[in-house]
Amino acid sequence: MASRKVVELFYDVVSPYSWLGFEVMCRYRHVWNIELKLRPAFLGGVMHGSGNKPPGMVPNKFKYMDKDLTRLAKYFDVPLKCPADPFEVMFQKGSMSAMRFVTAVQERETGGDEQVEQVSRELWRRIWSEDKDITQPESMSEAAKKAGLSDSDVEAALQLYTSQPIKDKLKNTTEHALSYGAFGFPMIVCHIDGKPEIFFGSDRFELMAFCIGEKWLGPKPDKSAARLMSGSGYPCKNGDTFCGKFYLHPKFPTLLGGSLVFLLSGRHILCKQVFRMADGTTDVSVSSWQIFVTLSRK
Amino acid sequence: MASRKVVELFYDVVSPYSWLGFEVMCRYRHVWNIELKLRPAFLGGVMHGSGNKPPGMVPNKFKYMDKDLTRLAKYFDVPLKCPADPFEVMFQKGSMSAMRFVTAVQERETGGDEQVEQVSRELWRRIWSEDKDITQPESMSEAAKKAGLSDSDVEAALQLYTSQPIKDKLKNTTEHALSYGAFGFPMIVCHIDGKPEIFFGSDRFELMAFCIGEKWLGPKPDKSAARLMSGSGYPCKNGDTFCGKFYLHPKFPTLLGGSLVFLLSGRHILCKQVFRMADGTTDVSVSSWQIFVTLSRK
Repeated sequence: MASRKVVELFYDVVSPYSWLGFEVMCRYRHVWNIELKLRPAFLGGVMHGSGNKPPGMVPNKFKYMDKDLTRLAKYFDVPLKCPADPFEVMFQKGSMSAMRFVTAVQERETGGDEQVEQVSRELWRRIWSEDKDITQPESMSEAAKKAGLSDSDVEAALQLYTSQPIKDKLKNTTEHALSYGAFGFPMIVCHIDGKPEIFFGSDRFELMAFCIGEKWLGPKPDKSAARLMSGSGYPCKNGDTFCGKFYLHPKFPTLLGGSLVFLLSGRHILCKQVFRMADGTTDVSVSSWQIFVTLSRK
Repeated sequence: MASRKVVELFYDVVSPYSWLGFEVMCRYRHVWNIELKLRPAFLGGVMHGSGNKPPGMVPNKFKYMDKDLTRLAKYFDVPLKCPADPFEVMFQKGSMSAMRFVTAVQERETGGDEQVEQVSRELWRRIWSEDKDITQPESMSEAAKKAGLSDSDVEAALQLYTSQPIKDKLKNTTEHALSYGAFGFPMIVCHIDGKPEIFFGSDRFELMAFCIGEKWLGPKPDKSAARLMSGSGYPCKNGDTFCGKFYLHPKFPTLLGGSLVFLLSGRHILCKQVFRMADGTTDVSVSSWQIFVTLSRK
Protein backbone atom coordinates (compact mmCIF):
# COMPACT_ATOMS: atom_id res chain seq x y z
CA MET A 1 0.00 0.00 0.00
CA ALA A 2 1.46 3.39 -1.00
CA SER A 3 1.82 5.92 1.82
CA ARG A 4 -1.09 8.31 2.23
CA LYS A 5 -0.82 11.68 0.48
CA VAL A 6 -1.12 14.69 2.77
CA VAL A 7 -3.94 17.02 1.71
CA GLU A 8 -4.40 20.38 3.46
CA LEU A 9 -7.80 22.10 3.37
CA PHE A 10 -7.74 25.85 4.08
CA TYR A 11 -11.19 27.22 4.86
CA ASP A 12 -13.25 29.84 6.64
CA VAL A 13 -16.86 29.30 7.76
CA VAL A 14 -17.83 32.66 6.23
CA SER A 15 -17.33 31.10 2.78
CA PRO A 16 -20.22 29.00 1.40
CA TYR A 17 -18.09 27.38 -1.32
CA SER A 18 -15.71 26.34 1.48
CA TRP A 19 -18.57 24.46 3.13
CA LEU A 20 -19.16 22.45 -0.05
CA GLY A 21 -15.44 21.71 -0.37
CA PHE A 22 -15.19 20.82 3.32
CA GLU A 23 -18.02 18.28 3.19
CA VAL A 24 -16.66 16.66 0.03
CA MET A 25 -13.15 16.36 1.48
CA CYS A 26 -14.51 15.00 4.78
CA ARG A 27 -16.35 12.32 2.77
CA TYR A 28 -13.34 11.45 0.62
CA ARG A 29 -10.89 11.20 3.53
CA HIS A 30 -12.45 7.75 4.05
CA VAL A 31 -12.42 6.82 0.37
CA TRP A 32 -9.12 8.11 -1.04
CA ASN A 33 -5.71 7.14 0.27
CA ILE A 34 -5.11 10.59 1.81
CA GLU A 35 -4.38 12.17 5.16
CA LEU A 36 -6.65 15.22 5.36
CA LYS A 37 -5.38 18.11 7.47
CA LEU A 38 -7.95 20.78 8.38
CA ARG A 39 -6.54 24.32 8.23
CA PRO A 40 -9.05 26.80 9.66
CA ALA A 41 -7.88 30.26 8.50
CA PHE A 42 -9.19 33.81 8.03
CA LEU A 43 -10.56 34.62 4.58
CA GLY A 44 -10.53 38.38 5.25
CA GLY A 45 -6.76 38.19 5.71
CA VAL A 46 -6.30 36.26 2.48
CA MET A 47 -8.41 38.73 0.49
CA HIS A 48 -6.46 41.64 1.96
CA GLY A 49 -3.07 39.97 1.58
CA SER A 50 -3.66 38.98 -2.06
CA GLY A 51 -5.41 42.20 -3.09
CA ASN A 52 -8.45 40.22 -4.23
CA LYS A 53 -12.02 41.54 -4.19
CA PRO A 54 -15.07 39.45 -3.24
CA PRO A 55 -16.81 38.07 -6.36
CA GLY A 56 -20.24 39.21 -5.15
CA MET A 57 -19.47 42.88 -5.92
CA VAL A 58 -20.48 42.44 -9.59
CA PRO A 59 -24.32 42.30 -9.66
CA ASN A 60 -24.57 39.63 -12.40
CA LYS A 61 -21.96 37.53 -10.59
CA PHE A 62 -23.79 37.87 -7.28
CA LYS A 63 -27.08 36.75 -8.85
CA TYR A 64 -25.32 33.81 -10.49
CA MET A 65 -23.59 32.74 -7.27
CA ASP A 66 -26.92 32.67 -5.45
CA LYS A 67 -28.33 30.33 -8.10
CA ASP A 68 -25.09 28.34 -8.41
CA LEU A 69 -24.92 27.72 -4.65
CA THR A 70 -28.55 26.58 -4.51
CA ARG A 71 -28.00 24.08 -7.33
CA LEU A 72 -24.65 22.86 -5.97
CA ALA A 73 -26.04 22.49 -2.44
CA LYS A 74 -28.73 20.17 -3.77
CA TYR A 75 -26.27 18.18 -5.88
CA PHE A 76 -23.68 18.00 -3.06
CA ASP A 77 -26.38 17.23 -0.48
CA VAL A 78 -25.28 20.04 1.86
CA PRO A 79 -28.13 21.97 3.58
CA LEU A 80 -26.81 25.34 2.42
CA LYS A 81 -29.25 28.27 2.27
CA CYS A 82 -28.31 31.89 1.62
CA PRO A 83 -28.95 34.20 4.59
CA ALA A 84 -31.41 37.08 4.18
CA ASP A 85 -28.60 39.67 4.06
CA PRO A 86 -25.41 37.99 2.82
CA PHE A 87 -23.52 41.29 2.66
CA GLU A 88 -24.10 42.01 6.35
CA VAL A 89 -23.23 38.41 7.26
CA MET A 90 -20.05 38.25 5.18
CA PHE A 91 -18.64 41.76 5.17
CA GLN A 92 -19.99 43.55 8.26
CA LYS A 93 -20.19 40.80 10.86
CA GLY A 94 -17.47 38.61 9.35
CA SER A 95 -15.83 35.54 10.84
CA MET A 96 -12.70 36.57 12.73
CA SER A 97 -14.05 35.60 16.17
CA ALA A 98 -15.55 32.38 14.86
CA MET A 99 -12.31 31.31 13.19
CA ARG A 100 -10.36 32.15 16.36
CA PHE A 101 -12.80 29.93 18.23
CA VAL A 102 -12.28 27.06 15.75
CA THR A 103 -8.52 27.60 16.13
CA ALA A 104 -8.87 27.37 19.92
CA VAL A 105 -10.81 24.10 19.58
CA GLN A 106 -8.08 22.77 17.29
CA GLU A 107 -5.34 23.89 19.71
CA ARG A 108 -6.97 21.98 22.57
CA GLU A 109 -7.94 18.83 20.66
CA THR A 110 -5.68 15.79 20.85
CA GLY A 111 -5.73 12.54 18.91
CA GLY A 112 -7.63 13.62 15.81
CA ASP A 113 -9.74 16.48 14.50
CA GLU A 114 -13.30 15.33 15.07
CA GLN A 115 -14.07 18.33 17.28
CA VAL A 116 -12.65 20.81 14.75
CA GLU A 117 -14.64 19.13 11.99
CA GLN A 118 -17.91 19.13 13.93
CA VAL A 119 -17.56 22.66 15.33
CA SER A 120 -16.75 24.03 11.86
CA ARG A 121 -19.80 22.25 10.44
CA GLU A 122 -22.09 23.62 13.15
CA LEU A 123 -20.82 27.16 12.60
CA TRP A 124 -21.46 26.80 8.87
CA ARG A 125 -24.92 25.45 9.63
CA ARG A 126 -25.66 28.55 11.72
CA ILE A 127 -24.46 31.13 9.20
CA TRP A 128 -25.17 29.36 5.88
CA SER A 129 -28.25 27.32 6.69
CA GLU A 130 -30.12 28.84 9.64
CA ASP A 131 -29.18 32.53 9.20
CA LYS A 132 -27.96 32.74 12.80
CA ASP A 133 -25.17 34.78 14.36
CA ILE A 134 -21.64 33.36 14.72
CA THR A 135 -19.90 36.42 16.20
CA GLN A 136 -21.05 36.28 19.85
CA PRO A 137 -19.62 33.95 22.54
CA GLU A 138 -23.06 32.42 23.17
CA SER A 139 -23.36 31.63 19.43
CA MET A 140 -20.04 29.76 19.45
CA SER A 141 -21.00 28.03 22.66
CA GLU A 142 -24.26 26.80 21.13
CA ALA A 143 -22.47 25.56 18.01
CA ALA A 144 -19.80 23.77 20.05
CA LYS A 145 -22.37 22.05 22.27
CA LYS A 146 -24.31 20.91 19.20
CA ALA A 147 -21.00 19.60 17.89
CA GLY A 148 -20.77 17.35 20.93
CA LEU A 149 -18.21 19.20 23.07
CA SER A 150 -18.63 18.92 26.83
CA ASP A 151 -19.54 22.02 28.86
CA SER A 152 -16.00 22.17 30.25
CA ASP A 153 -14.44 21.89 26.78
CA VAL A 154 -16.68 24.69 25.52
CA GLU A 155 -15.80 26.83 28.52
CA ALA A 156 -12.08 26.26 28.01
CA ALA A 157 -12.27 27.14 24.30
CA LEU A 158 -14.20 30.32 25.13
CA GLN A 159 -11.48 31.28 27.62
CA LEU A 160 -8.78 30.59 25.06
CA TYR A 161 -10.03 32.04 21.77
CA THR A 162 -9.27 35.70 22.54
CA SER A 163 -5.73 34.95 23.77
CA GLN A 164 -2.66 36.16 21.88
CA PRO A 165 -1.33 32.66 21.05
CA ILE A 166 -4.63 31.78 19.33
CA LYS A 167 -4.72 35.10 17.45
CA ASP A 168 -1.16 34.39 16.32
CA LYS A 169 -1.98 30.82 15.31
CA LEU A 170 -4.88 31.94 13.10
CA LYS A 171 -2.68 34.64 11.60
CA ASN A 172 0.09 32.12 10.91
CA THR A 173 -2.27 29.69 9.18
CA THR A 174 -3.63 32.56 7.07
CA GLU A 175 -0.09 33.62 6.12
CA HIS A 176 0.73 30.00 5.37
CA ALA A 177 -2.21 29.97 2.93
CA LEU A 178 -0.91 33.17 1.31
CA SER A 179 2.55 31.62 0.98
CA TYR A 180 0.91 28.87 -1.14
CA GLY A 181 -0.56 31.61 -3.36
CA ALA A 182 -4.06 31.83 -1.86
CA PHE A 183 -6.48 34.47 -3.16
CA GLY A 184 -9.67 32.93 -1.72
CA PHE A 185 -11.09 29.83 -0.02
CA PRO A 186 -11.46 26.93 -0.09
CA MET A 187 -7.89 26.20 -1.09
CA ILE A 188 -6.74 22.60 -1.15
CA VAL A 189 -3.03 21.76 -1.16
CA CYS A 190 -2.13 18.21 -2.22
CA HIS A 191 1.43 17.16 -1.47
CA ILE A 192 2.55 14.95 -4.34
CA ASP A 193 6.13 13.65 -4.45
CA GLY A 194 7.19 16.41 -2.07
CA LYS A 195 5.61 19.16 -4.19
CA PRO A 196 2.44 21.11 -3.35
CA GLU A 197 -0.35 21.10 -5.97
CA ILE A 198 -2.84 23.90 -5.30
CA PHE A 199 -6.56 23.71 -6.08
CA PHE A 200 -8.84 26.66 -5.52
CA GLY A 201 -12.61 26.36 -5.12
CA SER A 202 -15.07 23.49 -4.92
CA ASP A 203 -15.01 22.60 -8.60
CA ARG A 204 -11.66 20.89 -9.15
CA PHE A 205 -12.24 17.56 -7.36
CA GLU A 206 -12.29 15.53 -10.56
CA LEU A 207 -9.03 17.16 -11.69
CA MET A 208 -7.57 16.74 -8.20
CA ALA A 209 -8.40 13.03 -8.24
CA PHE A 210 -6.64 12.75 -11.61
CA CYS A 211 -3.56 14.52 -10.20
CA ILE A 212 -3.29 12.38 -7.04
CA GLY A 213 -4.08 9.09 -8.80
CA GLU A 214 -7.51 8.57 -7.25
CA LYS A 215 -10.97 8.28 -8.76
CA TRP A 216 -13.72 10.92 -8.52
CA LEU A 217 -17.04 9.27 -7.69
CA GLY A 218 -19.13 12.45 -7.52
CA PRO A 219 -19.85 14.58 -4.45
CA LYS A 220 -21.45 11.66 -2.57
CA PRO A 221 -19.01 8.76 -2.90
CA ASP A 222 -20.98 6.69 -0.38
CA LYS A 223 -24.02 6.88 -2.65
CA SER A 224 -22.09 5.84 -5.73
CA ALA A 225 -22.80 2.39 -7.16
CA ALA A 226 -19.16 2.08 -8.12
CA ARG A 227 -16.64 1.37 -5.38
CA LEU A 228 -12.89 1.42 -5.56
CA MET A 229 -10.42 -0.54 -3.58
CA SER A 230 -9.25 1.75 -0.85
CA GLY A 231 -5.99 1.85 1.00
CA SER A 232 -7.97 2.60 4.11
CA GLY A 233 -9.85 -0.70 3.88
CA TYR A 234 -8.58 -3.90 5.45
CA PRO A 235 -8.59 -7.54 4.33
CA CYS A 236 -11.23 -9.93 5.58
CA LYS A 237 -11.13 -13.69 5.23
CA ASN A 238 -11.54 -15.83 2.10
CA GLY A 239 -14.86 -17.51 1.50
CA ASP A 240 -16.92 -14.59 2.84
CA THR A 241 -20.55 -14.34 1.78
CA PHE A 242 -21.84 -11.51 -0.39
CA CYS A 243 -24.94 -10.45 -2.23
CA GLY A 244 -24.66 -10.21 -5.97
CA LYS A 245 -23.96 -6.63 -7.07
CA PHE A 246 -20.98 -6.83 -9.36
CA TYR A 247 -19.08 -5.31 -12.24
CA LEU A 248 -17.03 -7.30 -14.73
CA HIS A 249 -13.87 -5.78 -16.13
CA PRO A 250 -14.20 -5.26 -19.92
CA LYS A 251 -11.08 -7.33 -20.63
CA PHE A 252 -12.39 -10.31 -18.71
CA PRO A 253 -13.04 -13.36 -20.94
CA THR A 254 -16.76 -13.95 -21.25
CA LEU A 255 -16.56 -17.67 -20.49
CA LEU A 256 -14.81 -17.11 -17.15
CA GLY A 257 -17.41 -14.39 -16.55
CA GLY A 258 -20.01 -17.13 -16.68
CA SER A 259 -18.18 -19.19 -14.08
CA LEU A 260 -17.86 -16.18 -11.84
CA VAL A 261 -21.57 -15.47 -12.11
CA PHE A 262 -22.17 -19.05 -11.07
CA LEU A 263 -19.88 -18.68 -8.09
CA LEU A 264 -21.67 -15.50 -7.09
CA SER A 265 -25.13 -16.97 -7.43
CA GLY A 266 -23.94 -19.64 -4.98
CA ARG A 267 -23.18 -16.66 -2.69
CA HIS A 268 -19.59 -17.75 -2.15
CA ILE A 269 -16.42 -16.58 -3.82
CA LEU A 270 -12.78 -17.37 -3.22
CA CYS A 271 -10.98 -14.04 -3.08
CA LYS A 272 -7.37 -13.03 -3.27
CA GLN A 273 -7.94 -9.70 -1.54
CA VAL A 274 -11.00 -8.29 0.17
CA PHE A 275 -11.30 -4.76 1.49
CA ARG A 276 -14.04 -3.53 3.75
CA MET A 277 -14.98 0.10 3.11
CA ALA A 278 -15.61 2.79 5.70
CA ASP A 279 -19.34 2.69 4.97
CA GLY A 280 -19.63 -1.05 5.57
CA THR A 281 -19.62 -2.24 1.96
CA THR A 282 -16.86 -4.49 0.73
CA ASP A 283 -14.53 -4.42 -2.24
CA VAL A 284 -12.97 -7.53 -3.67
CA SER A 285 -9.97 -7.67 -5.95
CA VAL A 286 -9.08 -10.88 -7.75
CA SER A 287 -6.28 -9.29 -9.67
CA SER A 288 -4.65 -12.54 -10.80
CA TRP A 289 -7.81 -13.20 -12.81
CA GLN A 290 -7.66 -9.71 -14.30
CA ILE A 291 -11.04 -8.86 -12.85
CA PHE A 292 -12.46 -6.43 -10.35
CA VAL A 293 -15.60 -7.35 -8.48
CA THR A 294 -17.56 -4.90 -6.37
CA LEU A 295 -19.97 -6.31 -3.85
CA SER A 296 -22.18 -5.23 -1.03
CA ARG A 297 -21.55 -7.21 2.10
CA LYS A 298 -24.62 -9.29 3.05
CA MET B 1 -37.34 9.48 -27.36
CA ALA B 2 -37.64 12.83 -25.53
CA SER B 3 -37.06 15.92 -27.68
CA ARG B 4 -33.53 17.30 -27.63
CA LYS B 5 -32.78 20.08 -25.15
CA VAL B 6 -31.45 23.28 -26.68
CA VAL B 7 -28.08 24.28 -25.22
CA GLU B 8 -26.51 27.63 -26.15
CA LEU B 9 -22.75 28.10 -25.79
CA PHE B 10 -21.59 31.73 -25.61
CA TYR B 11 -17.85 32.07 -26.16
CA ASP B 12 -14.99 34.25 -27.36
CA VAL B 13 -11.70 32.86 -28.71
CA VAL B 14 -9.78 35.28 -26.48
CA SER B 15 -10.88 33.20 -23.47
CA PRO B 16 -8.86 30.04 -22.73
CA TYR B 17 -11.50 28.59 -20.39
CA SER B 18 -13.98 29.04 -23.25
CA TRP B 19 -11.80 26.78 -25.40
CA LEU B 20 -12.01 24.00 -22.81
CA GLY B 21 -15.78 24.44 -22.52
CA PHE B 22 -16.15 24.56 -26.31
CA GLU B 23 -14.28 21.29 -26.88
CA VAL B 24 -16.21 19.50 -24.15
CA MET B 25 -19.57 20.68 -25.49
CA CYS B 26 -18.59 19.77 -29.07
CA ARG B 27 -17.77 16.26 -27.80
CA TYR B 28 -20.99 15.91 -25.80
CA ARG B 29 -23.27 17.14 -28.59
CA HIS B 30 -22.87 13.60 -29.97
CA VAL B 31 -23.34 11.89 -26.60
CA TRP B 32 -26.11 13.79 -24.82
CA ASN B 33 -29.60 14.30 -26.19
CA ILE B 34 -29.01 18.01 -26.85
CA GLU B 35 -29.07 20.48 -29.72
CA LEU B 36 -25.94 22.61 -29.29
CA LYS B 37 -26.15 26.17 -30.61
CA LEU B 38 -22.83 28.01 -30.98
CA ARG B 39 -23.06 31.67 -29.95
CA PRO B 40 -19.82 33.49 -30.84
CA ALA B 41 -19.87 36.76 -28.87
CA PHE B 42 -17.54 39.51 -27.63
CA LEU B 43 -16.12 39.01 -24.14
CA GLY B 44 -14.92 42.63 -23.91
CA GLY B 45 -18.53 43.78 -24.27
CA VAL B 46 -19.70 41.39 -21.56
CA MET B 47 -17.01 42.52 -19.13
CA HIS B 48 -17.86 46.15 -19.81
CA GLY B 49 -21.62 45.61 -19.70
CA SER B 50 -21.52 43.67 -16.41
CA GLY B 51 -18.87 45.84 -14.73
CA ASN B 52 -16.68 42.78 -14.19
CA LYS B 53 -12.87 42.87 -14.07
CA PRO B 54 -10.60 40.20 -15.59
CA PRO B 55 -9.51 37.67 -12.94
CA GLY B 56 -5.85 37.92 -13.99
CA MET B 57 -5.45 41.35 -12.35
CA VAL B 58 -4.76 39.78 -8.93
CA PRO B 59 -1.17 38.41 -9.04
CA ASN B 60 -1.90 35.23 -7.02
CA LYS B 61 -4.96 34.56 -9.16
CA PHE B 62 -2.98 35.06 -12.37
CA LYS B 63 -0.30 32.61 -11.23
CA TYR B 64 -2.95 30.09 -10.25
CA MET B 65 -4.81 30.40 -13.56
CA ASP B 66 -1.62 29.70 -15.48
CA LYS B 67 -1.12 26.48 -13.50
CA ASP B 68 -4.83 25.61 -13.54
CA LEU B 69 -5.04 25.97 -17.33
CA THR B 70 -1.97 23.80 -17.87
CA ARG B 71 -3.39 21.03 -15.69
CA LEU B 72 -6.89 21.29 -17.17
CA ALA B 73 -5.56 21.32 -20.75
CA LYS B 74 -3.81 18.02 -20.10
CA TYR B 75 -6.85 16.48 -18.42
CA PHE B 76 -9.25 17.79 -21.10
CA ASP B 77 -6.84 16.83 -23.89
CA VAL B 78 -6.90 20.31 -25.47
CA PRO B 79 -3.52 21.58 -26.80
CA LEU B 80 -3.74 24.82 -24.83
CA LYS B 81 -0.51 26.70 -24.08
CA CYS B 82 -0.27 30.17 -22.57
CA PRO B 83 1.19 32.80 -24.94
CA ALA B 84 4.42 34.57 -23.96
CA ASP B 85 2.58 37.80 -23.14
CA PRO B 86 -1.03 36.98 -22.21
CA PHE B 87 -1.78 40.57 -21.21
CA GLU B 88 -0.87 41.91 -24.65
CA VAL B 89 -2.80 39.10 -26.34
CA MET B 90 -5.94 39.47 -24.23
CA PHE B 91 -6.16 43.14 -23.35
CA GLN B 92 -4.19 45.08 -25.98
CA LYS B 93 -4.78 43.10 -29.16
CA GLY B 94 -8.10 41.59 -28.10
CA SER B 95 -10.58 39.64 -30.21
CA MET B 96 -13.14 42.02 -31.69
CA SER B 97 -12.03 41.50 -35.31
CA ALA B 98 -11.68 37.75 -34.84
CA MET B 99 -15.16 37.41 -33.35
CA ARG B 100 -16.61 39.54 -36.16
CA PHE B 101 -14.93 37.17 -38.59
CA VAL B 102 -16.44 34.12 -36.83
CA THR B 103 -19.81 35.89 -36.93
CA ALA B 104 -19.40 36.45 -40.67
CA VAL B 105 -18.61 32.75 -41.18
CA GLN B 106 -21.72 31.87 -39.17
CA GLU B 107 -23.86 34.33 -41.16
CA ARG B 108 -22.81 32.72 -44.44
CA GLU B 109 -22.96 29.07 -43.36
CA THR B 110 -26.06 27.04 -44.17
CA GLY B 111 -27.12 23.58 -43.05
CA GLY B 112 -25.10 23.26 -39.86
CA ASP B 113 -22.25 24.91 -37.99
CA GLU B 114 -19.22 22.85 -38.94
CA GLN B 115 -17.44 25.88 -40.42
CA VAL B 116 -18.11 28.03 -37.33
CA GLU B 117 -16.87 25.21 -35.12
CA GLN B 118 -13.69 24.62 -37.12
CA VAL B 119 -12.85 28.30 -37.64
CA SER B 120 -13.32 29.01 -33.92
CA ARG B 121 -11.06 26.07 -33.08
CA GLU B 122 -8.33 27.24 -35.48
CA LEU B 123 -8.44 30.78 -34.06
CA TRP B 124 -8.09 29.35 -30.53
CA ARG B 125 -5.23 27.20 -31.74
CA ARG B 126 -3.44 30.30 -33.06
CA ILE B 127 -3.86 32.46 -29.97
CA TRP B 128 -3.89 29.85 -27.19
CA SER B 129 -1.57 27.18 -28.56
CA GLU B 130 0.81 28.67 -31.14
CA ASP B 131 1.06 32.25 -29.83
CA LYS B 132 0.10 33.68 -33.22
CA ASP B 133 -1.83 36.79 -34.15
CA ILE B 134 -5.61 36.70 -34.70
CA THR B 135 -6.23 40.40 -35.36
CA GLN B 136 -5.04 40.76 -38.98
CA PRO B 137 -7.03 39.70 -42.08
CA GLU B 138 -4.22 37.36 -43.19
CA SER B 139 -4.34 35.65 -39.75
CA MET B 140 -8.06 35.00 -40.08
CA SER B 141 -7.58 33.86 -43.64
CA GLU B 142 -4.95 31.32 -42.56
CA ALA B 143 -7.16 30.02 -39.76
CA ALA B 144 -10.17 29.70 -42.06
CA LYS B 145 -8.19 27.82 -44.72
CA LYS B 146 -6.85 25.45 -42.08
CA ALA B 147 -10.46 24.99 -40.97
CA GLY B 148 -11.27 23.71 -44.44
CA LEU B 149 -13.01 26.72 -45.99
CA SER B 150 -12.56 27.19 -49.73
CA ASP B 151 -10.64 30.22 -51.02
CA SER B 152 -13.88 31.82 -52.21
CA ASP B 153 -15.59 31.25 -48.84
CA VAL B 154 -12.62 32.81 -47.05
CA GLU B 155 -12.66 35.77 -49.43
CA ALA B 156 -16.39 36.30 -48.93
CA ALA B 157 -16.08 36.18 -45.12
CA LEU B 158 -13.20 38.68 -45.25
CA GLN B 159 -15.38 41.01 -47.35
CA LEU B 160 -18.26 40.63 -44.92
CA TYR B 161 -16.75 40.81 -41.43
CA THR B 162 -16.28 44.59 -41.29
CA SER B 163 -19.82 45.31 -42.53
CA GLN B 164 -22.42 46.96 -40.31
CA PRO B 165 -24.83 43.98 -40.26
CA ILE B 166 -22.04 41.72 -38.91
CA LYS B 167 -20.98 44.30 -36.32
CA ASP B 168 -24.63 44.51 -35.26
CA LYS B 169 -25.02 40.74 -35.15
CA LEU B 170 -22.01 40.32 -32.83
CA LYS B 171 -23.29 43.16 -30.67
CA ASN B 172 -26.74 41.57 -30.48
CA THR B 173 -25.34 38.18 -29.45
CA THR B 174 -23.23 39.89 -26.78
CA GLU B 175 -26.28 41.77 -25.49
CA HIS B 176 -28.24 38.53 -25.57
CA ALA B 177 -25.56 37.01 -23.32
CA LEU B 178 -25.84 39.99 -20.95
CA SER B 179 -29.62 39.58 -20.86
CA TYR B 180 -29.02 36.05 -19.50
CA GLY B 181 -26.86 37.58 -16.75
CA ALA B 182 -23.40 37.02 -18.28
CA PHE B 183 -20.32 38.37 -16.50
CA GLY B 184 -17.73 36.28 -18.37
CA PHE B 185 -17.31 33.37 -20.81
CA PRO B 186 -17.88 30.56 -21.44
CA MET B 187 -21.53 30.80 -20.51
CA ILE B 188 -23.78 27.85 -21.24
CA VAL B 189 -27.55 28.24 -21.29
CA CYS B 190 -29.58 25.02 -21.05
CA HIS B 191 -33.25 25.36 -21.89
CA ILE B 192 -35.13 23.02 -19.57
CA ASP B 193 -38.93 22.93 -19.63
CA GLY B 194 -38.97 26.36 -21.25
CA LYS B 195 -36.69 27.90 -18.61
CA PRO B 196 -33.03 28.88 -19.09
CA GLU B 197 -30.49 27.37 -16.67
CA ILE B 198 -27.22 29.31 -16.75
CA PHE B 199 -23.78 27.77 -16.18
CA PHE B 200 -20.66 29.89 -16.12
CA GLY B 201 -17.17 28.51 -16.73
CA SER B 202 -15.74 25.13 -17.67
CA ASP B 203 -16.23 23.48 -14.31
CA ARG B 204 -19.97 22.85 -14.05
CA PHE B 205 -20.41 20.03 -16.58
CA GLU B 206 -21.13 17.39 -13.95
CA LEU B 207 -23.74 19.67 -12.35
CA MET B 208 -25.12 20.55 -15.78
CA ALA B 209 -25.51 16.86 -16.64
CA PHE B 210 -27.39 16.38 -13.35
CA CYS B 211 -29.71 19.31 -14.20
CA ILE B 212 -30.52 18.18 -17.75
CA GLY B 213 -30.88 14.50 -16.85
CA GLU B 214 -27.74 13.30 -18.62
CA LYS B 215 -24.61 11.56 -17.36
CA TRP B 216 -21.17 13.17 -17.08
CA LEU B 217 -18.50 10.81 -18.39
CA GLY B 218 -15.51 13.10 -17.89
CA PRO B 219 -14.02 15.54 -20.41
CA LYS B 220 -13.36 12.79 -22.97
CA PRO B 221 -16.61 10.82 -23.25
CA ASP B 222 -15.32 8.91 -26.29
CA LYS B 223 -12.49 7.54 -24.15
CA SER B 224 -14.83 6.44 -21.39
CA ALA B 225 -15.45 2.72 -20.97
CA ALA B 226 -19.05 3.44 -20.10
CA ARG B 227 -21.45 4.34 -22.90
CA LEU B 228 -24.97 5.61 -22.65
CA MET B 229 -27.82 5.13 -25.02
CA SER B 230 -28.02 8.27 -27.06
CA GLY B 231 -30.94 9.93 -28.74
CA SER B 232 -28.62 10.68 -31.63
CA GLY B 233 -28.03 6.98 -32.28
CA TYR B 234 -30.19 4.95 -34.63
CA PRO B 235 -31.47 1.37 -34.53
CA CYS B 236 -29.68 -1.36 -36.43
CA LYS B 237 -31.04 -4.82 -37.07
CA ASN B 238 -31.54 -7.70 -34.64
CA GLY B 239 -28.98 -10.48 -34.61
CA ASP B 240 -26.03 -8.14 -35.20
CA THR B 241 -22.58 -9.36 -34.22
CA PHE B 242 -20.59 -7.77 -31.41
CA CYS B 243 -17.46 -8.28 -29.43
CA GLY B 244 -17.88 -8.88 -25.75
CA LYS B 245 -17.49 -5.65 -23.77
CA PHE B 246 -20.49 -5.48 -21.51
CA TYR B 247 -21.97 -4.19 -18.29
CA LEU B 248 -24.65 -5.98 -16.32
CA HIS B 249 -27.23 -3.94 -14.47
CA PRO B 250 -26.96 -4.56 -10.69
CA LYS B 251 -30.62 -5.60 -10.46
CA PHE B 252 -30.22 -8.26 -13.13
CA PRO B 253 -30.66 -11.82 -11.80
CA THR B 254 -27.32 -13.59 -11.78
CA LEU B 255 -28.66 -16.74 -13.44
CA LEU B 256 -29.98 -14.85 -16.47
CA GLY B 257 -26.64 -13.02 -16.47
CA GLY B 258 -25.04 -16.38 -17.10
CA SER B 259 -27.27 -17.06 -20.09
CA LEU B 260 -26.55 -13.64 -21.50
CA VAL B 261 -22.82 -14.20 -21.19
CA PHE B 262 -23.30 -17.43 -23.11
CA LEU B 263 -25.21 -15.63 -25.84
CA LEU B 264 -22.47 -13.03 -26.04
CA SER B 265 -19.67 -15.54 -26.17
CA GLY B 266 -21.49 -17.00 -29.18
CA ARG B 267 -21.12 -13.48 -30.63
CA HIS B 268 -24.84 -13.16 -31.32
CA ILE B 269 -27.56 -11.54 -29.31
CA LEU B 270 -31.22 -10.93 -29.97
CA CYS B 271 -31.85 -7.29 -29.14
CA LYS B 272 -34.95 -5.27 -28.54
CA GLN B 273 -33.27 -1.97 -29.36
CA VAL B 274 -29.83 -1.25 -30.74
CA PHE B 275 -28.30 2.20 -31.09
CA ARG B 276 -25.16 2.97 -33.02
CA MET B 277 -23.13 5.79 -31.50
CA ALA B 278 -21.49 8.67 -33.34
CA ASP B 279 -18.05 7.19 -32.71
CA GLY B 280 -18.94 3.83 -34.25
CA THR B 281 -19.58 1.86 -31.07
CA THR B 282 -23.00 0.43 -30.40
CA ASP B 283 -25.36 0.52 -27.46
CA VAL B 284 -27.94 -2.16 -26.86
CA SER B 285 -30.95 -1.88 -24.61
CA VAL B 286 -32.93 -4.97 -23.69
CA SER B 287 -35.18 -3.11 -21.33
CA SER B 288 -37.84 -5.80 -21.00
CA TRP B 289 -35.15 -7.93 -19.35
CA GLN B 290 -34.24 -5.03 -17.05
CA ILE B 291 -30.69 -5.01 -18.35
CA PHE B 292 -28.41 -2.64 -20.21
CA VAL B 293 -25.64 -4.04 -22.34
CA THR B 294 -22.87 -1.91 -23.82
CA LEU B 295 -20.91 -3.33 -26.69
CA SER B 296 -18.28 -2.36 -29.19
CA ARG B 297 -19.30 -3.16 -32.71
CA LYS B 298 -17.01 -5.80 -34.24
